[in-house]
Amino acid sequence: MPLDASLVEALAAVLGPRGLLTDPGDLAPYNVEERGLYQGAATVVARPDSTAACAEVVRLCAQAGVTLVPQGGNTGLCGGAVASAGQVILSTGRMNKVRWIDPDGYRMAVDAGCVLADLQRVAADVGCLFPLSLGAEGSCQIGGNLATNAGGVAVLRYGNTRDLCLGLEVVLPDGRIWDGMRALDKDNTGYALRQLFIGSEGTLGLITGAVLKLFPAPAATATALCAIDDLPRVSRLLGLCRSLTGDDVTAFELIPRFGMEIAVAHLDGVRDPLESPHPWYALVELSTSRPGADLAAVMEGLLERAFEEEVISDAAIAGSLDQRAGLWRLREGLPEAQKHVGGSIKHDVSVPVSKVPLFIERASAAVSAALPGIRPCPFGHVGDGNIHFNLTQPEGMDKAAYLDRWEEMNRLVHDIVADLGGSISAEHGVGRLKVGELHHYKSPLELELMARVKKAFDPQGVMNPGVVVD
Amino acid sequence: MPLDASLVEALAAVLGPRGLLTDPGDLAPYNVEERGLYQGAATVVARPDSTAACAEVVRLCAQAGVTLVPQGGNTGLCGGAVASAGQVILSTGRMNKVRWIDPDGYRMAVDAGCVLADLQRVAADVGCLFPLSLGAEGSCQIGGNLATNAGGVAVLRYGNTRDLCLGLEVVLPDGRIWDGMRALDKDNTGYALRQLFIGSEGTLGLITGAVLKLFPAPAATATALCAIDDLPRVSRLLGLCRSLTGDDVTAFELIPRFGMEIAVAHLDGVRDPLESPHPWYALVELSTSRPGADLAAVMEGLLERAFEEEVISDAAIAGSLDQRAGLWRLREGLPEAQKHVGGSIKHDVSVPVSKVPLFIERASAAVSAALPGIRPCPFGHVGDGNIHFNLTQPEGMDKAAYLDRWEEMNRLVHDIVADLGGSISAEHGVGRLKVGELHHYKSPLELELMARVKKAFDPQGVMNPGVVVD
Repeated sequence: MPLDASLVEALAAVLGPRGLLTDPGDLAPYNVEERGLYQGAATVVARPDSTAACAEVVRLCAQAGVTLVPQGGNTGLCGGAVASAGQVILSTGRMNKVRWIDPDGYRMAVDAGCVLADLQRVAADVGCLFPLSLGAEGSCQIGGNLATNAGGVAVLRYGNTRDLCLGLEVVLPDGRIWDGMRALDKDNTGYALRQLFIGSEGTLGLITGAVLKLFPAPAATATALCAIDDLPRVSRLLGLCRSLTGDDVTAFELIPRFGMEIAVAHLDGVRDPLESPHPWYALVELSTSRPGADLAAVMEGLLERAFEEEVISDAAIAGSLDQRAGLWRLREGLPEAQKHVGGSIKHDVSVPVSKVPLFIERASAAVSAALPGIRPCPFGHVGDGNIHFNLTQPEGMDKAAYLDRWEEMNRLVHDIVADLGGSISAEHGVGRLKVGELHHYKSPLELELMARVKKAFDPQGVMNPGVVVD
Repeated sequence: MPLDASLVEALAAVLGPRGLLTDPGDLAPYNVEERGLYQGAATVVARPDSTAACAEVVRLCAQAGVTLVPQGGNTGLCGGAVASAGQVILSTGRMNKVRWIDPDGYRMAVDAGCVLADLQRVAADVGCLFPLSLGAEGSCQIGGNLATNAGGVAVLRYGNTRDLCLGLEVVLPDGRIWDGMRALDKDNTGYALRQLFIGSEGTLGLITGAVLKLFPAPAATATALCAIDDLPRVSRLLGLCRSLTGDDVTAFELIPRFGMEIAVAHLDGVRDPLESPHPWYALVELSTSRPGADLAAVMEGLLERAFEEEVISDAAIAGSLDQRAGLWRLREGLPEAQKHVGGSIKHDVSVPVSKVPLFIERASAAVSAALPGIRPCPFGHVGDGNIHFNLTQPEGMDKAAYLDRWEEMNRLVHDIVADLGGSISAEHGVGRLKVGELHHYKSPLELELMARVKKAFDPQGVMNPGVVVD
């Protein structure tokens, strides 16, 4: 169903020529979807450059009975920003100003459309750290990070996006603006509305601005790749890291041998820094803002102790920034490396940290029993219990035939996740992709409460219908 | 209006003789209110000992059209647990078991009625820290801490109660049980229901259980009292503390000269550790779980630098556990010391950290202009922007006449708080006491959203009516 011409005219009047895209060539990047699982069909993209203009777009669409899909950097992995022909995409890309920054108070206020990497730089320029860090940081926008409560590699130390946000500005589904741009550590004056908008994937309102926490910039960093014989030892290493470093562990990432092999084989400039092969690796990073801290010594002491206790069997400490970058390229290149060895069925799951070994063992056994030759590549942020349980196809199998078994594999893996009290979407959110899975695994009571919240905030169903709640 | 006898009978049948109090003598402690601002009049206190029994109490009351007041340790400061004659108090005191503790995974699951100090001990017994710490910790219950999102002295380093909670179990206003007892760092599967219940002061449901975060226990602590000439220097000291210690600052508490004087004069065993008087003091505590960390040296280096930069004019480092306890007694005894010098009009407010000096200056000037001789005693957790802006009466003034000016002083102080983007209730919540102030300062839009949330969760208005939302 094409959009009503009078709505398009009204939007054009509000947004001006740069603010409204209707040319198919211009629309293309807004209609692609990161993993190719969906094909958008929007014919209109609104690109307001102010909160007031955002509000006007929402108001006009609500009035016309047209639904909206908020879109930030369009890097989401669950189809939460995909629009159909009858919908309007509201892109926040032109809302990209830092409103203020207060390095002494460790705060900044920003527009929703600021690119994450830009915010990291803005913070670094005043001697601070904005710790949110994830693969898409060069193009994802902070509004999308907030809407999906993005995770990333620094959650163990700094928390999820939710934990980095003190205030929000939100355009509600009727076009009114909620000014919750507080910069307070403590504010117990009623219901936690901010928390409700964070992670709601644009279904309760459009985030247009945020007040974010900053931290003292790290003065020292130490990075090492540890070789580990089995999964229980991975957990023991994490415990040692936390207790021996004063909680200076910033990252604790798991890499399986299979991941190392495909990364070395297919990624430029990635090499195995250790002499012999090992079943598992943990990429451990410590950092501190303590001036004069000798983190290299702390890391050496930690690894020595881990070696003595037979928790690790070998380790390589990054001796330079280049070596550190090399270790991170190995870790962050895993999804790309997997593309070189066939189809991949993916799971973004979490379990309680101490159950990570059990989960990986059970899930690997289950999928291998169902499809002999399947190659599990469980990697990721195991320091916070989040495993990207990705499954590479058996060698020689037809890729399409393999990918046809996506739902079967999902069910096997998610059943084990549920049994261990875990989450079927640890950091990527629900989007359209996992609404069905949510209905399968959430209690009817929780789904009912979510539906009541949706109805309380968006009774007309204007904002991102079909996402998160059905 | 007395309670219907058939409801009381039904409750008795569910709860047994120990589970239902109706004797006036037994009821007394449930009807007192911490500050004496309210007098409860409940004739029935239900004391269920299981989640199922809690659910049955809620269901029976909802069915009978009788409203409920959840009560934990009854230490709240805003009248949120005060019941009238027609209401039933649901006391969680018999729900006091630790369900499980996982020191390696840094988690524990507990009943809502566990006393905070008991949980601190349980964590310490397995080498961990549960960092929530506040004046009432010897009797307040974790369910109440969660319901009010309690703050306390360790927020700067560990966050509010909200930040320490991973999962909740809640009895909904219709008696159904929501099992959200997750132990996950990452879980992006829908709306943040847990966050909504936290801080809602028992108005959306009854918290019956929680999964809490633990941390490595501190291996070293260093505590000092710093003398400071003016408020801007207090802020500069905080900045130095954060940047020079690797964010190991656990507490940063402000004490004014007037507070020191009344504490020394009226509290047993409190003395001024510094030779000459100073306008302001900051109680600074560093702690770390890093084994072998020489925090004394870090503290000395920090104070040396602060002295060189003329940020502090003197300091006393606690050289023993006794001296440390003495410094904390000074800080924590301030509310008690104030009772010795007349009536006190209190404000639990916060402003952005960097605006603390401006707030204290403006607010002190405003109240002094309105009532010459008034003695401001601003103290508290300024490291997180939270000032207990307490005002002692002018010497010689009639106490009742002074306390009659409570609302006038509130208005003066809260207007300045609002002007600086602050909160009129930083950590104590809204209760019944601040509902009016909330209506004065919150936007109508925010009040409307809160009312919609209340209606979505508790359409019949069963849970704690008159608290938070009107």
